[in-house]
Amino acid sequence: MSIGIGVIGAGVMGSDHARLIRSHVSGAQLVAVADADPARAREAAGDARVDTDPLKLIDSSDIQAVIIASPDHTHGDFVLAAIHAGKHVLCEKPLAATSEDCLRIIDAERKAGLKLVHTGYMRRYDPTYRELKATLRAGALGKIRILHNQHRNRAAPDWFTADMAVTNSFVHEIDISRWLLGTEFKAVTVVAFTSDRPEAAADPLLITLEAENGAIVSTEVFLNAGYGYHVHAEAVCERGGVRMGQPALTSVLYEGSDRAAFPANWIPRFADAYRLQDQAWVNAIRGGSLDANASSSWDGYMASYIAEKTLEALKTGRRIALQVPQQTG
Amino acid sequence: MSIGIGVIGAGVMGSDHARLIRSHVSGAQLVAVADADPARAREAAGDARVDTDPLKLIDSSDIQAVIIASPDHTHGDFVLAAIHAGKHVLCEKPLAATSEDCLRIIDAERKAGLKLVHTGYMRRYDPTYRELKATLRAGALGKIRILHNQHRNRAAPDWFTADMAVTNSFVHEIDISRWLLGTEFKAVTVVAFTSDRPEAAADPLLITLEAENGAIVSTEVFLNAGYGYHVHAEAVCERGGVRMGQPALTSVLYEGSDRAAFPANWIPRFADAYRLQDQAWVNAIRGGSLDANASSSWDGYMASYIAEKTLEALKTGRRIALQVPQQTG
Amino acid sequence: MSIGIGVIGAGVMGSDHARLIRSHVSGAQLVAVADADPARAREAAGDARVDTDPLKLIDSSDIQAVIIASPDHTHGDFVLAAIHAGKHVLCEKPLAATSEDCLRIIDAERKAGLKLVHTGYMRRYDPTYRELKATLRAGALGKIRILHNQHRNRAAPDWFTADMAVTNSFVHEIDISRWLLGTEFKAVTVVAFTSDRPEAAADPLLITLEAENGAIVSTEVFLNAGYGYHVHAEAVCERGGVRMGQPALTSVLYEGSDRAAFPANWIPRFADAYRLQDQAWVNAIRGGSLDANASSSWDGYMASYIAEKTLEALKTGRRIALQVPQQTG
Amino acid sequence: MSIGIGVIGAGVMGSDHARLIRSHVSGAQLVAVADADPARAREAAGDARVDTDPLKLIDSSDIQAVIIASPDHTHGDFVLAAIHAGKHVLCEKPLAATSEDCLRIIDAERKAGLKLVHTGYMRRYDPTYRELKATLRAGALGKIRILHNQHRNRAAPDWFTADMAVTNSFVHEIDISRWLLGTEFKAVTVVAFTSDRPEAAADPLLITLEAENGAIVSTEVFLNAGYGYHVHAEAVCERGGVRMGQPALTSVLYEGSDRAAFPANWIPRFADAYRLQDQAWVNAIRGGSLDANASSSWDGYMASYIAEKTLEALKTGRRIALQVPQQTG
Repeated sequence: MSIGIGVIGAGVMGSDHARLIRSHVSGAQLVAVADADPARAREAAGDARVDTDPLKLIDSSDIQAVIIASPDHTHGDFVLAAIHAGKHVLCEKPLAATSEDCLRIIDAERKAGLKLVHTGYMRRYDPTYRELKATLRAGALGKIRILHNQHRNRAAPDWFTADMAVTNSFVHEIDISRWLLGTEFKAVTVVAFTSDRPEAAADPLLITLEAENGAIVSTEVFLNAGYGYHVHAEAVCERGGVRMGQPALTSVLYEGSDRAAFPANWIPRFADAYRLQDQAWVNAIRGGSLDANASSSWDGYMASYIAEKTLEALKTGRRIALQVPQQTG
Repeated sequence: MSIGIGVIGAGVMGSDHARLIRSHVSGAQLVAVADADPARAREAAGDARVDTDPLKLIDSSDIQAVIIASPDHTHGDFVLAAIHAGKHVLCEKPLAATSEDCLRIIDAERKAGLKLVHTGYMRRYDPTYRELKATLRAGALGKIRILHNQHRNRAAPDWFTADMAVTNSFVHEIDISRWLLGTEFKAVTVVAFTSDRPEAAADPLLITLEAENGAIVSTEVFLNAGYGYHVHAEAVCERGGVRMGQPALTSVLYEGSDRAAFPANWIPRFADAYRLQDQAWVNAIRGGSLDANASSSWDGYMASYIAEKTLEALKTGRRIALQVPQQTG
Repeated sequence: MSIGIGVIGAGVMGSDHARLIRSHVSGAQLVAVADADPARAREAAGDARVDTDPLKLIDSSDIQAVIIASPDHTHGDFVLAAIHAGKHVLCEKPLAATSEDCLRIIDAERKAGLKLVHTGYMRRYDPTYRELKATLRAGALGKIRILHNQHRNRAAPDWFTADMAVTNSFVHEIDISRWLLGTEFKAVTVVAFTSDRPEAAADPLLITLEAENGAIVSTEVFLNAGYGYHVHAEAVCERGGVRMGQPALTSVLYEGSDRAAFPANWIPRFADAYRLQDQAWVNAIRGGSLDANASSSWDGYMASYIAEKTLEALKTGRRIALQVPQQTG
Repeated sequence: MSIGIGVIGAGVMGSDHARLIRSHVSGAQLVAVADADPARAREAAGDARVDTDPLKLIDSSDIQAVIIASPDHTHGDFVLAAIHAGKHVLCEKPLAATSEDCLRIIDAERKAGLKLVHTGYMRRYDPTYRELKATLRAGALGKIRILHNQHRNRAAPDWFTADMAVTNSFVHEIDISRWLLGTEFKAVTVVAFTSDRPEAAADPLLITLEAENGAIVSTEVFLNAGYGYHVHAEAVCERGGVRMGQPALTSVLYEGSDRAAFPANWIPRFADAYRLQDQAWVNAIRGGSLDANASSSWDGYMASYIAEKTLEALKTGRRIALQVPQQTG
């Protein structure tokens, strides 16, 4: 039995999900794609149907599960609609426009009595992060004392702001840090590089999260690092550490140096993570549940909540306390 | 439309192909598994059918394509049966017991007028080998002058002989070297480590292939390297080189050193290669053809032929000339 | 003409300086060693004289230059005595017990009208740090935006405190960061790992220095990292970055992994730095001056001053502003 | 007591030895330099004397030890003169023009009753090779079964021939392989890359040495590798292996890749090896003997003898047997 999937949004992310469901995920079938631009919906859909109304797509009887990859501010409403229709939903990050909206989703899901929401923090499926977590779990190293994250992009568009560095990039680091540490955080501080050109965005940011168990998470987010896309993590523990290698399969001996290439952006870097996430999501739906490794609606809320507090820390220059409500879901 | 697949042989390799077709390959469906041992056929088959007679499986009307992973000496007959039935076939290496038997398969395929045979030299689908070849193709480095291959296993079973190092392990290096260089070879020489324990197998072997275009391929095959499974290639060209990195996603800082783990054996090392090979094979069948990247029946013949000559070089201690017939297929 | 050298203190550091002067530094001669323990002075001295009174050693007419490696709290007085005697002096860090005492040394040196003081921040002579700085100077990367330092020891003695992590270890990071960036700092913040065992030292510390030019220096000091001695730096600039490799000449393929060893402690890691520092110091004395690359008395003061403010930041949990007086030396 | 040193030859190598003795070696003093070109002798000499007659230099009473770095064909006579004068001598490789001439030197040394000759195979002092050998000696890995050497130059001068690849470059690999394995060889084979441009030198060469204890040494000598100077060794043993890391202290993140630079040529790569060799040579002279780690006259002979046989193997395309006379020295 194959799961019928609808994709809402046919931009970069939506098209890629559609391609994965069509050709790389076992046990699923792309049924329909919806986008405000019918031409790009058509292109993403392949042999599948094009729907003009996302809400109609959600309600279609031949669609058991929905992937939401429409513009960020529309996520929350589509997720709610999917929950009300009793459909499984994989929503690209962020889960909703604000953390308050995320809480509404959690509430709706609780009322539905079903775990239907998978937030698309796909790094949880990246083989490198998984190997890192498996090493931590194996126990020889003891608990994490400090986790260093580095999130570097080659170049951000001109209109990119320090706020977006938090809400678009740092949210991934929040989710993966919670996943690696298995703990919540009690405070956040931000130090920003300040250029002498006042119009330039503060870039990089150095963000410190203090965990409830005493551990420290230090994250550099640098959107104009110039040389390539470079995501790196190193966990330093009581009796040793574990860190990512350079993510290159080969190196080239050329013009005086041994060169290991960086990926151009997140798409080649996390290609396997997206595929494995979508496959795990489909497998879990076939079993009637949410994948145990998924970022849930609660995780989606936490990422958005901490990002909001990080923005406050950035703007005030102060250490901001985090208040984690009891998770009741 | 989904391709119906039958798997012959439910040992390590056959079970793995069955698992891939069932859960990781898009556009295909596992229809039946055949094995002399019905219990392990049952286990490999999942929801699919168990057939007792491989030839009946090949002829089944709901099976469009067959994977052959039975004992090596049976490969040739099953491949011929598949060709006669007009079925696509992916045959684990070797293609047949002798290079002469391979020629019979080439002949049958030619008479059938269809390219039906994919020999399972899966390294051609390994992302690392593909990146290596893509770098060579890009042209900046110029042509290969020397290719170094290293094929190391942690430990071979007691009954393993130097002959098997050639026919089981070195065949992979032959196929991938032909694929990387795009040329044929004119001579082969072998030097063997000779232990002072006369009963021990000559291990490692150092095998030199001389290519028709002047390039050299030097391959170490070491079946008892002790420390792990380690396949490595470095191509040195006119203006630079390209080589594999250490195949570890993370490294561990522990007890005085920075440690990058080796895979235990070929299964984790080439897991992606098998999946991508099986997916490409299915995709090509859906398009009615043989995948352009596949090791064909001709390639399967060449690997077996060169392996036979390599055995002759090992036994005589002499440089053996290779005679490549004109490929007429 | 060979420079006559006296060494005060024959502990680990003093003995090592004596050994270097005796056998590895060209153009110098070890004349005398002084230590409260005459036996270990004897052992360090080799063929050289043993003096019981350090002040007499400083005044000896056959000694042109003095290395001070006595207990930390005695440094300041010996340095002042050397200045008054008109002798060149290489003083192990810290330059004096407090930053105020350092100012007294700067004052004495100014009155003497000679640059006589070389503070032993030897990392400035480490080939790896020098290569890193040369790459930054070459200009292609642009200015540093963020510098990450990691200072990890395998294990600290039981009596080690978080204060000592600042005054013994972090001082090296202060000096080398000032040397790499060529700028002063305006604020310091500390976040400490806090164990649930209240008696345990806060370890690691994560220390953030904000530079006057907007750059950020983030330093982890972890004295019980468990796995080895690991000093690492990565400078991330406007158009790229530069970072240290793993400091191992070889790696070992053993029991499942590729292992690059860490040095046991700072002695093997910085053996070349000490030798090259002492040689450069001797060469400069032969030319009548202070080596241009040396950490001067001013640099020694700055390291001590910032360390004191870092302790304040650690104790208060607050961001502490740094006030750099105009350098008048 | 300082050893008075004379240097014969003020080309690249001689000037460098003179510089080392003058400024980087403890316990020695440069007394005189001799060269056919008095101007470059003057430049190399610094404050030392310039001699016009090398034989007079050798006989000077203020010179206890001689470094020979004159043109290769003159080495043998100067070494003999030094032996007759009872002077210690460090002779750049090769020890003499032919292996027969080397035997005459061994004979003269035996008659003198003193080990006076240190052949300048300086790699024995390179920290990387030493770490490699120390790991092998430690025993955990067992005996070497195969040693892979790679000797790559960026570009050879136009007049360089395949013969010179053997006599100038491969000799280093012979000496260091004997030093690492501690055994002699019984046969040598050469396979050469053959270009379609008949005037081009055969480059690279792949040279196989078979050791008396069964081990294999496989060496690539590639003089026009294009990308940089790259010397690499990997010893694969019974229970694991040990290999050199990339010889870069730092790596640069720039324009899409992580780049570890290669040295331009042997001078930066082996700068420490030359310094440590010259220091060890001086230390041994002060103790009245030859350094235990040095390449002796016997080792100098063996390198030349095997190189001659390697040339024979290159020219005939045959496996050439090696006859090692009993070492009687």
